[in-house]
Amino acid sequence: MCNQLVRVWCSCLVLLMLSPGAHTLTPSDYMKMRSEMIDDDESSRIGANLVLSAAELKVNSIFMKEKRAMIESSLINRTIYSPSTSFYYSKSEIDQTYLYQLIHRMPKGAALHIHDQSMVSLDWIVKNVTYRENVYMCMWRKEYLIYRFFRKKPTKTTCDWKLVNDARKESGDVNKFDLEIHKSLSLIATDPFIDFPDSQVAWTRFIRFFYQIGKLLYYIPIFKEMLWQTMNEFREANIQYIEVRVSYLGLYDLSGTVYNREYCVQLVKEISDAFVQRYPDFIGMKVIFLGLRNHDESEILDEVKEVMVLHQKYPDVVAGYDMGGNEALYHPLSYYRDALLYPSQQDPPYHLPYFLHVGETIWQGTETGYNLVDALLLNATRVGHAYVLNKHPRLMKLYKDRDIPLEVQPLSNQVLRLVSDLRNHPMASLIANNYSVVISCDDRTTLDSAPLSHDFFLCFTAMSSERADLTLLKQLAINSIRFSSLDDVQKDRAMTLWQSKWNAFIAETEQSE
Amino acid sequence: MCNQLVRVWCSCLVLLMLSPGAHTLTPSDYMKMRSEMIDDDESSRIGANLVLSAAELKVNSIFMKEKRAMIESSLINRTIYSPSTSFYYSKSEIDQTYLYQLIHRMPKGAALHIHDQSMVSLDWIVKNVTYRENVYMCMWRKEYLIYRFFRKKPTKTTCDWKLVNDARKESGDVNKFDLEIHKSLSLIATDPFIDFPDSQVAWTRFIRFFYQIGKLLYYIPIFKEMLWQTMNEFREANIQYIEVRVSYLGLYDLSGTVYNREYCVQLVKEISDAFVQRYPDFIGMKVIFLGLRNHDESEILDEVKEVMVLHQKYPDVVAGYDMGGNEALYHPLSYYRDALLYPSQQDPPYHLPYFLHVGETIWQGTETGYNLVDALLLNATRVGHAYVLNKHPRLMKLYKDRDIPLEVQPLSNQVLRLVSDLRNHPMASLIANNYSVVISCDDRTTLDSAPLSHDFFLCFTAMSSERADLTLLKQLAINSIRFSSLDDVQKDRAMTLWQSKWNAFIAETEQSE
Repeated sequence: MCNQLVRVWCSCLVLLMLSPGAHTLTPSDYMKMRSEMIDDDESSRIGANLVLSAAELKVNSIFMKEKRAMIESSLINRTIYSPSTSFYYSKSEIDQTYLYQLIHRMPKGAALHIHDQSMVSLDWIVKNVTYRENVYMCMWRKEYLIYRFFRKKPTKTTCDWKLVNDARKESGDVNKFDLEIHKSLSLIATDPFIDFPDSQVAWTRFIRFFYQIGKLLYYIPIFKEMLWQTMNEFREANIQYIEVRVSYLGLYDLSGTVYNREYCVQLVKEISDAFVQRYPDFIGMKVIFLGLRNHDESEILDEVKEVMVLHQKYPDVVAGYDMGGNEALYHPLSYYRDALLYPSQQDPPYHLPYFLHVGETIWQGTETGYNLVDALLLNATRVGHAYVLNKHPRLMKLYKDRDIPLEVQPLSNQVLRLVSDLRNHPMASLIANNYSVVISCDDRTTLDSAPLSHDFFLCFTAMSSERADLTLLKQLAINSIRFSSLDDVQKDRAMTLWQSKWNAFIAETEQSE
Repeated sequence: MCNQLVRVWCSCLVLLMLSPGAHTLTPSDYMKMRSEMIDDDESSRIGANLVLSAAELKVNSIFMKEKRAMIESSLINRTIYSPSTSFYYSKSEIDQTYLYQLIHRMPKGAALHIHDQSMVSLDWIVKNVTYRENVYMCMWRKEYLIYRFFRKKPTKTTCDWKLVNDARKESGDVNKFDLEIHKSLSLIATDPFIDFPDSQVAWTRFIRFFYQIGKLLYYIPIFKEMLWQTMNEFREANIQYIEVRVSYLGLYDLSGTVYNREYCVQLVKEISDAFVQRYPDFIGMKVIFLGLRNHDESEILDEVKEVMVLHQKYPDVVAGYDMGGNEALYHPLSYYRDALLYPSQQDPPYHLPYFLHVGETIWQGTETGYNLVDALLLNATRVGHAYVLNKHPRLMKLYKDRDIPLEVQPLSNQVLRLVSDLRNHPMASLIANNYSVVISCDDRTTLDSAPLSHDFFLCFTAMSSERADLTLLKQLAINSIRFSSLDDVQKDRAMTLWQSKWNAFIAETEQSE
């Protein structure tokens, strides 16, 4: 059938090409060719080649009825299309849709781009972590509250630390107190479209979140619980596996001792193994260590060496290395060239997989954009964002030919002010052209979003064709396992697991109608 | 040199391709390949292959100094980048820049996509046309003022017509009175980003403008003056030639007589010839008749037949046919299939050139987007907007292979709310990939913008690489003549004329430094 389509398409093309001037299409030829050209165009999209079973087709019709109803309602009734608006407004509307509930329940495969300090639900931090003993807060430079564990109130500091539980009690209104914490940590407590006139302003506010909360989450008992809680939340959102960026800033205990990266790896292994033992329908969690772009090259070289050793020693836990932080503000990847080439220059060369944040910018032709080139030269296994890739046609071709997966984060890009209306997200064109895209949820804590579900929803409703159906979502789930760091045996297991969950989801959803 | 580059690039590619796993690039190889890949990527951009003369290079350095200063100022001082903001705010800032003044003075070739009822400066309408005798206004349905010529105040109407000059006198404040007219006609009197939450709302307001002013401009003496005034304004902005969409709604005189399309063609010819005689450095004006998508097929068939005859009879004035109006709201092109195929089905087939508005939408996979397919099947000579083309990879290839020029209107797309930050304009990726783009200024009267200059400026500062230089602007000017409807002899003349103006501009600008 596919061959036939190609043939028809070719003859259609020939016909067109042979008639640069006047032509004599009959009305019926016209409509036939029109429909073939539309089908052909649509067939280039991610997932378009998947063939759905009878049961899947029934479920597909539910998805499409919901999707079309949303679009038609906007086009015909001329109402605002909520997936195109600020998440500050759209979140509650999205959550109420049946389509969102379906996508939330749907098995989505792997979350390949999330960050350790912003992956658990914000509610859990506010309603659970800040209620623990030994949690202190202080107003930092009269600007915002920061949180941290101490054995006792620190004295040698200019910041006036106070036990959170004491402050909560004194406030006289626990709900209001907690709401204020929530608001101060969420990027969507107010409308980012108004508060952040551009990406730089958004980044300043975004980075504040990590100052506020980073140390709180790096207290060892909380870090362990957070790993468990995260896996639990992702599993409940029907996600089967996680690769987490760890921007290792030092796990600590109440004695003030700070532990090294290897200790962190062992913790992740311990919690992940325990979680998988408790929930055998979850594959586990791997770590991508994240270097920060404001560090100098020698620091990064030390990290690379350390991560290389850990990658060799814990191949089932350590997936590789990445560099993060505001690309526009700090060093380009080329500055770290020698450090990042280090593993490949060993004898024999060592392959340390790189998962690099690159091209997360709305500017074109700046060093941030050309980090895309470095990722190619550094033989990246996957890249994060690549927002600007569509403006670099030759690089696009290299990414496509080399099948380098792109980790796309719709919501993160919107809130960090790269794009307002997600229908203009540049990845829409790459999704339409079957690039190796995976969808992830980046920093969901401060985005106050669900594990993958909101991002999948937005990709489906705002970043793809009205015709793009369940095959898109299914392929995105398959992509996430296919492009994960699991080895072949683990991948087969993950795929089998996902498939059985998928089949169950299809059966349930079909029956529920 | 070009061959050498390709060779180096190939070897670089081979090297990359041969090392899917670990690789052993030396730091110097790395930097060499990096710079080659960036140059190669940049070389695919519109105009990248132009070789500048020594004088042009000097002028180029002025352009680039200005462009880079704007970008760097935003990146380093973290100020808002005005080309990325609403034209409501950016206009005054842009106008003050030396870069804008340079672009305004620069010979820009042809304006290929403008509309008769919105091509002259708004100031001229307010400060000149509304001061004429016999201009009446009335408040339409208590919503907005409409303007029209009458011999005397109409009585058989529910609208309370009043002479504008009387109302102006009675107002007691002429400036305020005129400012109110200006505001009521301009789409940027207030911020479109706030007033128009989406494209549909913007269109409603946009269409109002034509109800307000259309009849005023179709009064024959004014229409003639407007043609002259338009050519004058465009010539003063260093534009050499115009193709204007005429949405022929009936020229009239004070007796109430309405004249046909042929009369309109004769008028355009008369005024254009007179203007060219007065200013031999101007090529003139051609007409593209614009059918409206809310008409039914039989009406459009009648128009096509009429325009076919006029095209044959006045080949130097009538360039062809187009269909306009809100694509999302009215019929798709396929509805008019039989009417639009009519010329090609004559014996012998008649080639009536089509310049079709298509894909002016932020939606993907809707009928509006598939108008792109119809334009291909109808063998369009050029297309207007094609905003959604980048989301249709197979159609993109056909447009590229068949070299179909795309008439891009940055400002119109922003104000009509397809895109907010023009750095996200989808045409940025097609400009980077050397599609046949021409830049135009669509409905500049109500956008309150200059002939081409603002759109060229925005393309240069927001829709291209930081590295994109004078070669981009020069090629865009060349494209506009190359893709015009002028015949080969006329094109040669236009190109020679433009070239001599270009040389003068380069010489003057070089000397002024």
